[in-house]
Amino acid sequence: MKYVAGVDLGGTNTKIGIVDTEGHIVESTSIKTDSMRGIEDTFTRIWRSIEDLAKKNSVRVEGIGMGIPGPVVDQSVVTFFANFPWEAGTDCSQLMERISGIPTKLDNDVNVIALGEARFGAGRGYRSSVTIALGTGVGGGIYVDGKLISGMTGAGGEIGHMKLVKDGKLCGCGQRGCFEAYTSATGIIREATSRLLVNKTNALYERIGGDLSVLEAKDIFDAAREGDEFSLDIVEYEAEYLAMGIGNILNIINPKAIILGGGVALAGDILLKPLREKLKKYAMGATLDGLEILQAELGNEGGVVGASALVL
Amino acid sequence: MKYVAGVDLGGTNTKIGIVDTEGHIVESTSIKTDSMRGIEDTFTRIWRSIEDLAKKNSVRVEGIGMGIPGPVVDQSVVTFFANFPWEAGTDCSQLMERISGIPTKLDNDVNVIALGEARFGAGRGYRSSVTIALGTGVGGGIYVDGKLISGMTGAGGEIGHMKLVKDGKLCGCGQRGCFEAYTSATGIIREATSRLLVNKTNALYERIGGDLSVLEAKDIFDAAREGDEFSLDIVEYEAEYLAMGIGNILNIINPKAIILGGGVALAGDILLKPLREKLKKYAMGATLDGLEILQAELGNEGGVVGASALVL
Repeated sequence: MKYVAGVDLGGTNTKIGIVDTEGHIVESTSIKTDSMRGIEDTFTRIWRSIEDLAKKNSVRVEGIGMGIPGPVVDQSVVTFFANFPWEAGTDCSQLMERISGIPTKLDNDVNVIALGEARFGAGRGYRSSVTIALGTGVGGGIYVDGKLISGMTGAGGEIGHMKLVKDGKLCGCGQRGCFEAYTSATGIIREATSRLLVNKTNALYERIGGDLSVLEAKDIFDAAREGDEFSLDIVEYEAEYLAMGIGNILNIINPKAIILGGGVALAGDILLKPLREKLKKYAMGATLDGLEILQAELGNEGGVVGASALVL
Repeated sequence: MKYVAGVDLGGTNTKIGIVDTEGHIVESTSIKTDSMRGIEDTFTRIWRSIEDLAKKNSVRVEGIGMGIPGPVVDQSVVTFFANFPWEAGTDCSQLMERISGIPTKLDNDVNVIALGEARFGAGRGYRSSVTIALGTGVGGGIYVDGKLISGMTGAGGEIGHMKLVKDGKLCGCGQRGCFEAYTSATGIIREATSRLLVNKTNALYERIGGDLSVLEAKDIFDAAREGDEFSLDIVEYEAEYLAMGIGNILNIINPKAIILGGGVALAGDILLKPLREKLKKYAMGATLDGLEILQAELGNEGGVVGASALVL
């Protein structure tokens, strides 16, 4: 059995795990990222944690894989750091290799989760899959024949900013009509809030005690599941744009599997059933033959396991 | 120097060429496809033409590449034949290898053109490119790190059926709001025709002598180039949806180059200038840094050269 380290670098905490060739975490730990102390300091502390875990489990680490929030080119250079005061264009693989003496690769955090799902999660055994993380935003990762499509400047798989409506809803990115603006958890909350401002005679309004500020995507799906027509209509809206966006991805990539992760995917059948039905309106028939629509399996471990897959 | 054969299988005629390792056609010929005589008959005649060309030029053919109108899986099996009365699911590589005794690969005709442009045409030297054929319909081919993304069922790169408008214009495929319905030559003719039915005081109407049935995309671009405001407005419309569709491809694939082919691409700067400007509204900034937007270079030779690239 071969062992590598998987690192999930976050704005506040960094998860670190020793992973075996089958994608199982032997042991993992978490440290403060403390990015203000500089990249060299953070990377050195990450390496020390890896060494400790390896020693404790009597294994030799043969590679380090890292997921990072930001665009990564050639699995080494970070074009810019979204959440850290670190220098843009840093060759992070080279830096970690210098510190650790061990081959290192890194990629964007959502791409890494997609790689993990493709190799060890819901997509294992399939030659191609697209993983879509439906959370506060919408991220994606495209896996084809063993590799991620990371793109020329690391923006490959940025499906959340595919435009579905010309001059449509304003997105957090500053552009309009993005997939994310309609289908993220924030997107469905925006739509529900807008409707609740003019309709208060529904079970959703009661559920949140009339306090729009506490509304979560889960409330909408829960109320819909209990038969609230107002909420069912919002879920229908979500499913429609989800089908349009996924349909586009199917027509462009034609993958074997679509893997849905993030909070919105937890809605389950109340969302997936209308989604499957509506896909027929947006995707070419050939892309639906044998297509699997799956929920992500790795959950919180996705970042560490996926990062390890970069070097397994 | 190594030599291979490139075959561009069409509904009526089939082009066949001997191509060298640098993508140059040594000699080419054309035969009637005569698909009614059966696939074995057509393939045997293709092989005889290859043998003749090879003998005449005193070269040994080491591989056969074929482009075919229809979805191809694993560069061998044609899921169904769009224009031929041949059996769906035929393993065409195997059949040609049995007839010729020479390794054969095939792929969809638009994918093959994209491969040709990527290796030997406008995209040579770039690691990734997406070729978009803007003709009667809109086809596409995606090239990343030396390979085409052909998809699970051969529908990879079917960008023409990406939806840009929910419940939008009816497309030839039977669905609505497709990229193709807005940006193909047919798309721009539809839009112009619709407008000409209510506005006849413009240079475009004069140019076609009031006969809507003779209107071609070229007329619109020519009239626009001469300053006709009515036509300029239609070009603006074309550029807008082209930018939206290409922007989506950039956000998903993040290629180094977009290569435009087909009749609409011949419009040149009158279309490409507003397209470049409008892309900023639809594509993430990172996907535009260093992006090349190019016109296809291989023209009529694209099919033969591209097919040969499958085995070069």
